[in-house]
Amino acid sequence: MQHFASDNYAPVHPEVMAAIVAANDGAAVSYGDDPVTARLQDRAAEVFGERARIFPVLNGTGANVISLMAAAPRWGGVIASDVAHINTDENGAPERVGSLKVLAAPSVAGRIGPDAVDRYAGDLGNVQRAQPAVLSLTQVTELGTVYSPADLKLLADTAHAAGLRVHLDGSRLANAAATLGVGLREITTDVGVDILSFGAAKNGGMLGEAVVVLADGGHDAPGSAAGLVEAVPYLRKATMQLASKTRFVSAQLLALLGEPGAPTSGTGEGAPLWLRNAAHSNTMAARLRAGIETAGLTSAVRITRPTDANVVFATLPRAAADRLRAHARFYDWAPGETADRVEVRWMCAWDTTAADVDEFVRALGDAV
Amino acid sequence: MQHFASDNYAPVHPEVMAAIVAANDGAAVSYGDDPVTARLQDRAAEVFGERARIFPVLNGTGANVISLMAAAPRWGGVIASDVAHINTDENGAPERVGSLKVLAAPSVAGRIGPDAVDRYAGDLGNVQRAQPAVLSLTQVTELGTVYSPADLKLLADTAHAAGLRVHLDGSRLANAAATLGVGLREITTDVGVDILSFGAAKNGGMLGEAVVVLADGGHDAPGSAAGLVEAVPYLRKATMQLASKTRFVSAQLLALLGEPGAPTSGTGEGAPLWLRNAAHSNTMAARLRAGIETAGLTSAVRITRPTDANVVFATLPRAAADRLRAHARFYDWAPGETADRVEVRWMCAWDTTAADVDEFVRALGDAV
Amino acid sequence: MQHFASDNYAPVHPEVMAAIVAANDGAAVSYGDDPVTARLQDRAAEVFGERARIFPVLNGTGANVISLMAAAPRWGGVIASDVAHINTDENGAPERVGSLKVLAAPSVAGRIGPDAVDRYAGDLGNVQRAQPAVLSLTQVTELGTVYSPADLKLLADTAHAAGLRVHLDGSRLANAAATLGVGLREITTDVGVDILSFGAAKNGGMLGEAVVVLADGGHDAPGSAAGLVEAVPYLRKATMQLASKTRFVSAQLLALLGEPGAPTSGTGEGAPLWLRNAAHSNTMAARLRAGIETAGLTSAVRITRPTDANVVFATLPRAAADRLRAHARFYDWAPGETADRVEVRWMCAWDTTAADVDEFVRALGDAV
Amino acid sequence: MQHFASDNYAPVHPEVMAAIVAANDGAAVSYGDDPVTARLQDRAAEVFGERARIFPVLNGTGANVISLMAAAPRWGGVIASDVAHINTDENGAPERVGSLKVLAAPSVAGRIGPDAVDRYAGDLGNVQRAQPAVLSLTQVTELGTVYSPADLKLLADTAHAAGLRVHLDGSRLANAAATLGVGLREITTDVGVDILSFGAAKNGGMLGEAVVVLADGGHDAPGSAAGLVEAVPYLRKATMQLASKTRFVSAQLLALLGEPGAPTSGTGEGAPLWLRNAAHSNTMAARLRAGIETAGLTSAVRITRPTDANVVFATLPRAAADRLRAHARFYDWAPGETADRVEVRWMCAWDTTAADVDEFVRALGDAV
Repeated sequence: MQHFASDNYAPVHPEVMAAIVAANDGAAVSYGDDPVTARLQDRAAEVFGERARIFPVLNGTGANVISLMAAAPRWGGVIASDVAHINTDENGAPERVGSLKVLAAPSVAGRIGPDAVDRYAGDLGNVQRAQPAVLSLTQVTELGTVYSPADLKLLADTAHAAGLRVHLDGSRLANAAATLGVGLREITTDVGVDILSFGAAKNGGMLGEAVVVLADGGHDAPGSAAGLVEAVPYLRKATMQLASKTRFVSAQLLALLGEPGAPTSGTGEGAPLWLRNAAHSNTMAARLRAGIETAGLTSAVRITRPTDANVVFATLPRAAADRLRAHARFYDWAPGETADRVEVRWMCAWDTTAADVDEFVRALGDAV
Repeated sequence: MQHFASDNYAPVHPEVMAAIVAANDGAAVSYGDDPVTARLQDRAAEVFGERARIFPVLNGTGANVISLMAAAPRWGGVIASDVAHINTDENGAPERVGSLKVLAAPSVAGRIGPDAVDRYAGDLGNVQRAQPAVLSLTQVTELGTVYSPADLKLLADTAHAAGLRVHLDGSRLANAAATLGVGLREITTDVGVDILSFGAAKNGGMLGEAVVVLADGGHDAPGSAAGLVEAVPYLRKATMQLASKTRFVSAQLLALLGEPGAPTSGTGEGAPLWLRNAAHSNTMAARLRAGIETAGLTSAVRITRPTDANVVFATLPRAAADRLRAHARFYDWAPGETADRVEVRWMCAWDTTAADVDEFVRALGDAV
Repeated sequence: MQHFASDNYAPVHPEVMAAIVAANDGAAVSYGDDPVTARLQDRAAEVFGERARIFPVLNGTGANVISLMAAAPRWGGVIASDVAHINTDENGAPERVGSLKVLAAPSVAGRIGPDAVDRYAGDLGNVQRAQPAVLSLTQVTELGTVYSPADLKLLADTAHAAGLRVHLDGSRLANAAATLGVGLREITTDVGVDILSFGAAKNGGMLGEAVVVLADGGHDAPGSAAGLVEAVPYLRKATMQLASKTRFVSAQLLALLGEPGAPTSGTGEGAPLWLRNAAHSNTMAARLRAGIETAGLTSAVRITRPTDANVVFATLPRAAADRLRAHARFYDWAPGETADRVEVRWMCAWDTTAADVDEFVRALGDAV
Repeated sequence: MQHFASDNYAPVHPEVMAAIVAANDGAAVSYGDDPVTARLQDRAAEVFGERARIFPVLNGTGANVISLMAAAPRWGGVIASDVAHINTDENGAPERVGSLKVLAAPSVAGRIGPDAVDRYAGDLGNVQRAQPAVLSLTQVTELGTVYSPADLKLLADTAHAAGLRVHLDGSRLANAAATLGVGLREITTDVGVDILSFGAAKNGGMLGEAVVVLADGGHDAPGSAAGLVEAVPYLRKATMQLASKTRFVSAQLLALLGEPGAPTSGTGEGAPLWLRNAAHSNTMAARLRAGIETAGLTSAVRITRPTDANVVFATLPRAAADRLRAHARFYDWAPGETADRVEVRWMCAWDTTAADVDEFVRALGDAV
């Protein structure tokens, strides 16, 4: 049975597993005061800029909610796209754990523009309304599209001008950097992101992600509940996202980001694993899309979104989708353009092979 | 540098690590719908009783808060000892994430008695008061003491008679079972515990623990917010405790509990790892206590608590404690009986060796 | 300076004030165990049906949030229109106090249809999603429109069929009943509403509203956190909505609903005050709309919504609106159809007189 | 049937009711932007100091929770006496609405000392612990005792030195000022209180209390979530404590505090109502205590607490208490010193007359 269901079905990358095993070297101080986490901090400063502070956490929802709580006061709202993971797939954790309100803005191909800020900026100062305090963007978006650095900068500048902070949900940040051909810093710190959820699990990790504070305006920052760097450690504990044996989360992140001093770019041997994994899964998605087109399946299988990263969205006849399920696991995304058609999501991961893709295309051809 | 600071300083046990590596076998469905987690459920039914339902989570605070939220309505209170981890060391997570109130009761040597229930039972029906809904016990207690099965049964019966549910914080449950010479079921399911936080990290695990529902009265149970089994999966997601790659948490739990069909008792080869590790760390604490006594250090070093499990509490002169810190890492627990003395906590783990203990006793002798 | 800003600018109706003064008759048991509140309960049973249970609270947001918390589990979501007060104008209280997620559905003229339920019903059983647990409707809607009894029944039946409960935000319920020519029961209990926020302040009251439980399925009800009648008193206290001197809230509600045995319909002398006040304010809004049309102002002033109740929405040139502000206070509602035009809201209250309306129309004529 | 149950059983004082009626003078802007509230702000500056900012809210629990949320970050704890109303009688609202942890400290006669701060100050900087952020004091305490200005100053100085803010729960502040013979400012602003819950309902009010910010350190204040004055308006709305017709709360507060320019001291005609009412109820409690003593009842009725303000605590035989209940309503407070005795609370209010007291003493004599 093949799977093109999610990049979190993939196993742990061997280099990540090796790093976990290596971190298991005798006793170490718990709760993050260990040498592996210290190396991770050094590496984060190399990758994201010297002011960056990295805090390992337990999962992506945790990274998002801690980031948003740090960046918004108790009366804050978070502007995000209507399809944002924080709005649709976290069972209300931002609301329930964070006591925040998500202020949804309409998206096009998963992306929002500066008008998302404008839509809510008029509520500033109105006590009846949740106060817009953070603009939360997702990169890669939930629809597989990517914001350019210029897009991000415009959005961040617009948010900052309105007194908001900028959060980036980067559960697939590596895939975005790979497709844009830039480093992680160029689409985070350099474009004005204040706080980042950095994803690991979908890119070869096992358990854990990170919050990375990129810019900390301190207590005077607009909408601030406190300085971000001051806030995150307390919030991490209070929201139940602090691992006693943090070194094993840090080891995974370090395996992906590379040890201090290692290259921060390149996709050959010795290049950072985050980029090798992401570039590979992106390539597999491109191969899948091209395979569908080359195989002449596009009359039955209509690609519905840009394929910027590691996922292909398409509609196909419902009956064909059902036949294909006998061969591979994948998720429905939405009803299709007619009652007989369904939109599905096919996602590639670091472990997807060219042979996997080619076999899937053949099975798809048989199904339609 | 030695450490007797915490059992969470210890590395991952090799059998646990081997299980993690073994679980990394190709793709698997995420969020717990995988074969490793299915085996864990089968094993949990063998260990805790056929009605038991196990839910892997990310850490101990998560296990506690999910358990309490499942067992209490929104207006509920949780009766617990004043030294309970949920009351002192979770940065208010039960209050902040769970919206619950901890109703502290005085403890003796870390334990509470049925009068803890009586103290708050009079508040039932009084809307001004948080409604006592759960009795939360810790086994091993935070002071290293153990409740007997009869203690637990009396407490659970008292709680049930008052209409409360019973939660057990079992972050060191294995150590209690080892010292009592009973199975895990005899001090949980069989004595009336409704919902359990089952600890792994302090007993050789890496990242993750479990919520185990042992008895689910369903919607009609007193104080119920819903059936426990219905509630836990939603709460696990909403409180940010659901791992996408749950199989790697399940693998750890399975390594500790043993595969389905394996023995549930015995401490030799083939015996369950939870018991081997716990028995060993208990033995090391007993050796430490005996070593102090045998070395004639008890005029300077006064043991302050029963040594039921894997931890020794003692007071010693503050200056001696400071000298000892040059040799080993450990935590202060409380001021001692005079201004010159301090109470410290020395904790053993699965990786503590007899030689470690003997060396520490020598260093302690030098220090006092 | 005239005001057509909000029905909460209006003073307290003399009959309500007289009831408050009358309730100030010596000492009375606090927290609602007083004779005035007992009479209110009797009256509520007459008005809403014998199973109805009424709970005075402090304001409308409180009534809404208590209702939603009672009706939804901790992992629940509340389906509501995108313009619902709970979604836009309560500064996130449902999220922050209630730990709930509002699931917004597109509205037409402020109303939603059964497809609002369909939109989210597919999320039932998916732990990643807030679980739809309550359908919350507003009557009169925020746009001044009214659901017919048949509309409400269809919506409630759809919600119930999907396992949801039905909440009605009735901050202007009286106006809806007045315009429909039905009693309060016909658009609440009789159409399947489970729990109601009954408004007083906007209809001549001073401070306070009520939660009214109309149908309590008990612990087995779908999505139930507990029986509604059991839950509300605890939630009212825990959410800080319980008045120590509840009798003074009850007195207001009783003045509006009428004493036990009084008529429940009719708009002449002796008729219930809620209906007299609501009918009057509706009439004033109709007069305002007709006045604008009769005065031939409709080329400059375009009525934008149906005038079902006590409010008129219109667009007019921005400059004209600004001139009109020198004469009367009112709120902008939205940008108008062009940059030069703005949509405004003109609201009538129990104290608006025909002369007020006529004068306002004249001023409007001068302004445009 | 007499009542010595609570000062919230008392009716509204006629001057307060007159002020409510007077405020009902035509339309007024809602949500506090009205002339009555403006006068209240002017008066608050006279009474509490020119920097004071007053915010009417709906009840005492609301005033407390808003104050604490404003003064503490999301990871904050509130040090308070174990018998504090916020700890025992608000059904967990500080935890549930405020996401705060109450850090209880042992009290003597309802009072705590600077050691309450010391007990928790060691937790500062420890992420495992709720961070002490506010010291909350109650004046008059729940046991009817009063802190002297010097007591308060020492407590506030200790708290400030540790980086905490100081909150005062002043639900009976007037009674404390009356017994101490000082103004409201001398036991709030002048001793270092940062934020105050100012009580009205127990001193002749109807519905509503106030938060008064006395000192606002702004964003740089230790433990600050934001400037207090910035925070309170948003929190008031988000916690459902903002009245649409705020003028009617303000009118009550103004009736108690006096109009701008009126005397702030003295207890004769023209003196502030808060003081006249409080002095009277204190006098009645003193008369009650003296009456018991004079009547020679003290062998059966043992006074158990100082009678600093308007309440007498005593133990008496349980059977006598039960007989007395046929004559008067009052509350049990605690079990007494033996199984046969019970501790009860007898509270006087502004409406208690000397004849009431004398009759009650006679009935008590008959009962024992």
